[in-house]
Amino acid sequence: MTQSQGWAAQNATTPLAPYSFTRRDPQAHDVVVDIDYCGVCHSDIHSTRNEWKNAIYPMVPGHEIIGHVTAIGSAVTKFKVGDLVGVGVIVDSCRTCSSCKAGEEQYCEVGMTTGGITLTYGAYDKYGELTQGGYSTNIVADEHFVHRVSPKLNPAGVAPLLCAGITTYSPLRHWNVGPNMKVGVVGLGGLGHMALKFAHSFGAHVVQFTTSESKIADAKRLGADEVVISKDTDAMKKQENTFDFILDTVSAPHPIDPLITALKRDATYTQVGLPDTPPVIFTGNLLFKRRNMSGSIIGGMAETQEMLDYCAEKGITSDIEMIGIGQINEAFERVVKADVKYRFVIDMKAGK
Amino acid sequence: MTQSQGWAAQNATTPLAPYSFTRRDPQAHDVVVDIDYCGVCHSDIHSTRNEWKNAIYPMVPGHEIIGHVTAIGSAVTKFKVGDLVGVGVIVDSCRTCSSCKAGEEQYCEVGMTTGGITLTYGAYDKYGELTQGGYSTNIVADEHFVHRVSPKLNPAGVAPLLCAGITTYSPLRHWNVGPNMKVGVVGLGGLGHMALKFAHSFGAHVVQFTTSESKIADAKRLGADEVVISKDTDAMKKQENTFDFILDTVSAPHPIDPLITALKRDATYTQVGLPDTPPVIFTGNLLFKRRNMSGSIIGGMAETQEMLDYCAEKGITSDIEMIGIGQINEAFERVVKADVKYRFVIDMKAGK
Repeated sequence: MTQSQGWAAQNATTPLAPYSFTRRDPQAHDVVVDIDYCGVCHSDIHSTRNEWKNAIYPMVPGHEIIGHVTAIGSAVTKFKVGDLVGVGVIVDSCRTCSSCKAGEEQYCEVGMTTGGITLTYGAYDKYGELTQGGYSTNIVADEHFVHRVSPKLNPAGVAPLLCAGITTYSPLRHWNVGPNMKVGVVGLGGLGHMALKFAHSFGAHVVQFTTSESKIADAKRLGADEVVISKDTDAMKKQENTFDFILDTVSAPHPIDPLITALKRDATYTQVGLPDTPPVIFTGNLLFKRRNMSGSIIGGMAETQEMLDYCAEKGITSDIEMIGIGQINEAFERVVKADVKYRFVIDMKAGK
Repeated sequence: MTQSQGWAAQNATTPLAPYSFTRRDPQAHDVVVDIDYCGVCHSDIHSTRNEWKNAIYPMVPGHEIIGHVTAIGSAVTKFKVGDLVGVGVIVDSCRTCSSCKAGEEQYCEVGMTTGGITLTYGAYDKYGELTQGGYSTNIVADEHFVHRVSPKLNPAGVAPLLCAGITTYSPLRHWNVGPNMKVGVVGLGGLGHMALKFAHSFGAHVVQFTTSESKIADAKRLGADEVVISKDTDAMKKQENTFDFILDTVSAPHPIDPLITALKRDATYTQVGLPDTPPVIFTGNLLFKRRNMSGSIIGGMAETQEMLDYCAEKGITSDIEMIGIGQINEAFERVVKADVKYRFVIDMKAGK
């Protein structure tokens, strides 16, 4: 067994605290990763506090993992000891369904259950073990779910690419965002700021939608050509019928109709946040312009590697605030208040 | 001026009654059509009863028009006197916007206002005249909005193709319905029965969703390979993740989520009915399979002609019940009760 030292939630109400546990010995296709950095995703908070009612404790969260390979299984071909690598939101899928074969493991037809999509933490894997995430010293994962990371980039800034990055990169690519397109990004948080960087880098004319005037300058610094205050009814009215694509990263309930009407004929609005109150949608806004509403989650393994390679080529990383693991409970409180620009990353080698 | 004799609503509450009025003299691009048949669309009832709060009286409804050309303007090239022709839901659009230039006049960027989309009845046209529909002896329309009709088909059964036909044909074509696809049709009325005929004729495996067991046999006769009772939760559950496309023709409020979850990854659910209560949608069902929700209205002029030609080639018409204009108020009541298989068509030459 591989000894690991993490920070875990023991139940829904206590803070994260040190927790010793073991991981499986590396199997033929496994790599053992010594963790350097782990990003702090809002879903880590939802999960450890059991806000999605599916928590299994103890729970070591963390699915934006960067580290070095320290051992490899006998059949591993992608990696060697010493390689800089990343692990994201999922660590297994069925590998045989049409989605998995299409490289869309995140939509594995078996679903989010043992034998299908195995989340990096809080799930039972095919060995019957409870998965534990990246707020820990190491992780053992099948090489198919481990990604090469270029040493050209600041590895701490790469960590959030494994969730916030791919979650926004994938839909922007799927709906072919590029030059001569007007693209909207809704929300400027961990996901939104990556969507902005990607859409700008793909050559689109990018409009940031935000409720907060205080974010205008930062949005422009991050790549927005325009900023629209979404609470401003007149400003929203002016955007009607002008967008080729809108990516909505907001997970709090908010009005959807003004975003749908901002789309041109045949254009698509896509959610990657999941508000806990289902939106009410006037479907006439879809009919009268043949507009589309869709959603997307993370991205496939091949596309995650493609994104990491693209970021290395273009010098794209997340804007981060670095913390030590001892500051994690304070960081959680700040994430809940959206008080972070734009992602906390834990330096797992820093003092506790 | 061209004298016309129609049946009009004088306000929202009185029955339709005979009404004499004039139409413009044919202009250079106009054709004068002597009306033989006119289909009875549910929207004729919504409109004449001002249920959409935009009625202008007197109102002669009817936008599923079949007739013969009796005169042509000096610049008309598509038609000659004696031709069998059809007129549908719109009689003008701006002709210059990107949608009009793309042959998608129904999505004209000017919108449903004078100078943009001009509805066949109940709208002010570019001449400043109130348009009047097909429950009348004749109509004058620009040839761009008039379609050739093959004499091979029963012209009465062709009339509903001008609205119910194109409204279902267009989205089935837009989303590339064809062989090796499992396609759902929701609702079996005027629109639904045409969707069923088209989807079957395009080679898809077609599943009819209906709330009514009494419709099973008829659905199969009309082209359904399977019929699913949409009130049956277990039956709906079995359909999860299996559809390539679903076309929903129901305009009464009904549950949407079980239809969305019936879609495969990346598949599309499209509404052509417009329930007056906006649906509440659990957007997680879109996200977790990257499914799409969309809508569509009628079709463009070129596509309407394409559909009519396709129907002539394949022998497709609407199933109808023929009435005389004197029975129109009784027919309206039966449409409201969904007591028609599947479209009333008025024989305008029959006795009053």
